[in-house]
Amino acid sequence: MNMKDFLLGKPLKNSDIKDQKLSRGWGLPLMASDAVSSVAYAGEEILLVLVPVIGLGAFHFVPWITLAIILLLLILIFSYSQIIDHYPNGGGAYIVSSENLGKYPALLAAASLVVDYIMTVAVSVSSASDAIVAAFPGTAPAKVWIAIVFVLLITFGNLRGIRESARLFGTPTYIFIGCLGLLIIVGFVRVLTGTIHPVAYTQQMTQSLSTSMAGLSIALILRAFASGCSALTGVEAVSNSIPNFKEPSQRNAKHILFMLGGVIVFLFGGSTLLELKLRVIPVSGGTILSQLGTAVFGNSILFYILQLFTAIILILAANTAYNGLPLLLYILAHDGYVPRQFAHRGTKLSFSNGIMFICIAAVLLILVFQAKTTNLIPLYSVGVFISFTLSQYGMFRKWHKTRDKGWQYKMWINGVGAVLTLIGVGVEVSTKFTQGAYMIVIAIPVLMLLMVYVQKHYSKVGSELKLNRFHPYYDQATAHSTQVIVLMQSVNKSLLKSLNYANSISDDVTVLHICRHPEHAAQLREEWNRLDIPVKLEIVLTPYQDIIAPLDKYICKREAALKHGETLSVIIIKFVSEHWYDAVLHNQTTYFLERVLSRHKNVSSIILPFHYNPESTKVKAATRDEETPGEKG
Amino acid sequence: MNMKDFLLGKPLKNSDIKDQKLSRGWGLPLMASDAVSSVAYAGEEILLVLVPVIGLGAFHFVPWITLAIILLLLILIFSYSQIIDHYPNGGGAYIVSSENLGKYPALLAAASLVVDYIMTVAVSVSSASDAIVAAFPGTAPAKVWIAIVFVLLITFGNLRGIRESARLFGTPTYIFIGCLGLLIIVGFVRVLTGTIHPVAYTQQMTQSLSTSMAGLSIALILRAFASGCSALTGVEAVSNSIPNFKEPSQRNAKHILFMLGGVIVFLFGGSTLLELKLRVIPVSGGTILSQLGTAVFGNSILFYILQLFTAIILILAANTAYNGLPLLLYILAHDGYVPRQFAHRGTKLSFSNGIMFICIAAVLLILVFQAKTTNLIPLYSVGVFISFTLSQYGMFRKWHKTRDKGWQYKMWINGVGAVLTLIGVGVEVSTKFTQGAYMIVIAIPVLMLLMVYVQKHYSKVGSELKLNRFHPYYDQATAHSTQVIVLMQSVNKSLLKSLNYANSISDDVTVLHICRHPEHAAQLREEWNRLDIPVKLEIVLTPYQDIIAPLDKYICKREAALKHGETLSVIIIKFVSEHWYDAVLHNQTTYFLERVLSRHKNVSSIILPFHYNPESTKVKAATRDEETPGEKG
Repeated sequence: MNMKDFLLGKPLKNSDIKDQKLSRGWGLPLMASDAVSSVAYAGEEILLVLVPVIGLGAFHFVPWITLAIILLLLILIFSYSQIIDHYPNGGGAYIVSSENLGKYPALLAAASLVVDYIMTVAVSVSSASDAIVAAFPGTAPAKVWIAIVFVLLITFGNLRGIRESARLFGTPTYIFIGCLGLLIIVGFVRVLTGTIHPVAYTQQMTQSLSTSMAGLSIALILRAFASGCSALTGVEAVSNSIPNFKEPSQRNAKHILFMLGGVIVFLFGGSTLLELKLRVIPVSGGTILSQLGTAVFGNSILFYILQLFTAIILILAANTAYNGLPLLLYILAHDGYVPRQFAHRGTKLSFSNGIMFICIAAVLLILVFQAKTTNLIPLYSVGVFISFTLSQYGMFRKWHKTRDKGWQYKMWINGVGAVLTLIGVGVEVSTKFTQGAYMIVIAIPVLMLLMVYVQKHYSKVGSELKLNRFHPYYDQATAHSTQVIVLMQSVNKSLLKSLNYANSISDDVTVLHICRHPEHAAQLREEWNRLDIPVKLEIVLTPYQDIIAPLDKYICKREAALKHGETLSVIIIKFVSEHWYDAVLHNQTTYFLERVLSRHKNVSSIILPFHYNPESTKVKAATRDEETPGEKG
Repeated sequence: MNMKDFLLGKPLKNSDIKDQKLSRGWGLPLMASDAVSSVAYAGEEILLVLVPVIGLGAFHFVPWITLAIILLLLILIFSYSQIIDHYPNGGGAYIVSSENLGKYPALLAAASLVVDYIMTVAVSVSSASDAIVAAFPGTAPAKVWIAIVFVLLITFGNLRGIRESARLFGTPTYIFIGCLGLLIIVGFVRVLTGTIHPVAYTQQMTQSLSTSMAGLSIALILRAFASGCSALTGVEAVSNSIPNFKEPSQRNAKHILFMLGGVIVFLFGGSTLLELKLRVIPVSGGTILSQLGTAVFGNSILFYILQLFTAIILILAANTAYNGLPLLLYILAHDGYVPRQFAHRGTKLSFSNGIMFICIAAVLLILVFQAKTTNLIPLYSVGVFISFTLSQYGMFRKWHKTRDKGWQYKMWINGVGAVLTLIGVGVEVSTKFTQGAYMIVIAIPVLMLLMVYVQKHYSKVGSELKLNRFHPYYDQATAHSTQVIVLMQSVNKSLLKSLNYANSISDDVTVLHICRHPEHAAQLREEWNRLDIPVKLEIVLTPYQDIIAPLDKYICKREAALKHGETLSVIIIKFVSEHWYDAVLHNQTTYFLERVLSRHKNVSSIILPFHYNPESTKVKAATRDEETPGEKG
């Protein structure tokens, strides 16, 4: 059992893929973690915009803003359920845009989603490590490392396969939903029975609040709306992940989407209403949610469970990206817009390259921004709103074109959705532009350009490799032959092994030695002559330490002299040690030489292993051979 | 011009080595930087041991301790000048021990020196970054990075070659010696003319000092002696570096050693005397040297120059290691105790691998100890005292054995030296054991064991490779032949290129495809049949994602069926892109496959490049070809 198997568990067969799909029961929490975690702070985000400007007057506007957000949520749920119906292979906004709006809008959607998924990971683990630092101030200097450890843990869980990660990451999400649901229900029961009253703040806390409505403006309301819209992020993940669900995957995806919608409406609506009833305002040293918790649960164990799972759900929000992004990258790889490696599954049948990509990108972001949530937040949710807008507009165009049953009515819904989410994009970008959103405005087009470049490269390579009927590449007519060059360092057994091999593949063999010290050359030639082998030895003298340049020059000369059908083969002796750690004791020039040689079109490199202890190695190989079938199949 | 040439400058010819040697004028400052920099704090070290215990009573003992250290210095200078006479190829304590005391004492000396050289680098740059942080407190969080940047700068300077680094690093050393010399001379002139008086400390500063002699003990005096002995480190560097000096290198080395001795006696003795006259005591917020500077120079520009160059000399002390250690590693590599790569010179004819080794090891130490000088100091100078003791004892044995003219008298000197330095080792280890010196006590034997392991490996390999007259490895009698296996991913032009090549080297060619999806297998076979090529196709089905294990299994089977003289050759098609950055768009499995195949004794890997854009590459190769002669010789 090697290291990889130990860490990731036994490899899975390709046919096991169906067992790796998500049931409705586990699909819901995996898809919900991002959306539900944003509920934990969306209400607060609205108040944070309004309260500093219009004080307690905020409570006049919160219900309307919440209502507008819930309306938008319903539109999005409707829209994405249509997308699931029509685009069963996943990909969400990218596929919708690519079919209805064309290549560049599709790439815009793809780039936005890629950026946003990665931001989701960075933001959630950073705020989770904020929570840890708040609880244990001593850990403050290690904050960045805590965030990185979280990313690594989630990455590791996902590499072990979808099903295992579902159990690992799904259970805490359910517990959090349960806690928050209980908070809302108990809260309202206590409100109705009159056993609970608005939170009493000290005068010091409230007197600083402005109570004039002077600062009120449409821009302020729009900003509060856009901030609250963070509750909507995560809705798109379901439509990106359809192929991850058990069959019938479309039906299951839709059910999960509807359940998710219900959960968000209940949690977001309920907690906002409760917050209004209890007149909770943001104060330093306690989030809105923790204030609600204290008010409703008092100092009971339930309060601490709520706090604990709020922290955990912030970590798990990152997990949504691990479900959606690798699938999106797979689809993009299939269309040739990202490196092909993203289309491969790992030993556990997860898209391991996509998962690793998220991990590396998120860790870099965390390092660059030093895990500071306030710096990361402005970069967050711009991307998801762009993708919302594009998918709404795409569906709008689709209805207009296909004119299915009830198209006018569907077109209206998606049209309104497109306008509302476009407002979201505009407000997000304009209000947060100087705080960092400009980076997103740069990053998305750069990503798009990269995708276009990658696609061009693949199509060029594809046409280059394609077999042409009229110009057969394989030709038996030409007399093919190769001239062999054996690279020699000194006269020893390994040289003789390579000469045996060289003679077996060609009649034209040269031994080449690149020599730095002229005095060695004579000695070497003498040793060579003593062997009395009918092969010619060429010694190239160089006054420098570098042997690559003279080798390259020699190869160029030999290559230029080749006739049609002839090639050069360079034998590089590779010293294979008994233990892997012995390798550092020998020159590691094999691959370096190979890389230089492979720049020449007609030159191939033959890497000939020389085992310095052939007896013991043979025994080992045999043992390995017998183990293999039992172990691997 | 490539990146490497740009950074390091034009490559040098091997014959340029003589121009890279150090003259006396540049050799002195390069050898002196470590020794002179320790003078900057050796006096302080003595006071730091004595003053907290016996207060101003310390001034009674300082002169005697200083005298003892200067005596020991003279013994060491005498001893090392004898070593230079008798061992002209450098290597100092290692060579002396290996010749007079045997293998294990020699390895003990070598390991001690390796550890100490690296500690020198870590300690000096850490204390240099202390100085920076003291001057600019805002830089405190970046302290570790400042230290690492210093290491990288010195490494870079040394990679550019000895001569260039001599000028770069030698000038500041001269300026520092000049400043300190001026301080001593001006100080004594002012003492004699009565224009200077003992430093006046506030009562607060002095009243905390104990004035009783209750704490006085032999152990205390020995500890003060051992601390002050740090002034002696760096003396051994000259004898390790003899081949770095211009011819006559022995004569030059001895002159440099004597000059170095003179400089140390003058600076260490002078500054200690001045310190006694002015009754300077260590207080927080000012080193002894800076207090002397203020007292003598006042607030003039000279004071600031002294301070600046004290900081610079601390960085440059690290440079001594860059001169001594690569040469020591070269000698050890020659004897087979460390990897052979340390014996190679780089393009600038410096021992670039040794230089890189120092850099990496020092950076690791700095990271682990977070550049905290107080944590590193206890690990420092144990190693050098072990090497002092061994070289003294080695010379003692040598005189005893050879009985040259005046042997009794020389034997006495080296015997006393050995005893004194052994006391140094004992005091260093025992007083600092729990503070970290135990790590040295572990590290040195571990290094020795590694050296023994490396040497065993090389001697085993050497005997394995050696040609045996009675058992010729090369045999023309056997009919050698190879069976070719072409690894195929899909049917395209690159496959045909490799088939052409395969046919040119063998009559027995198989195309192998490892297939994960059975449905692809049929399709592939059909495509293959349509090509109508008389080569057999084998498809190995695997239920897993991993293709390495089934390939390995297949190769094992084929290898087992080989007859005497037959080998297997596996052709791996390598996709060569136009731009290096395009490489990420293609699977990077070439070397991975090669590594697995080379575990098989009778299997060679043929890496066949396929250039997807042969026309443009051909043009490039031609251009490169024409440039090469002009550029490289």
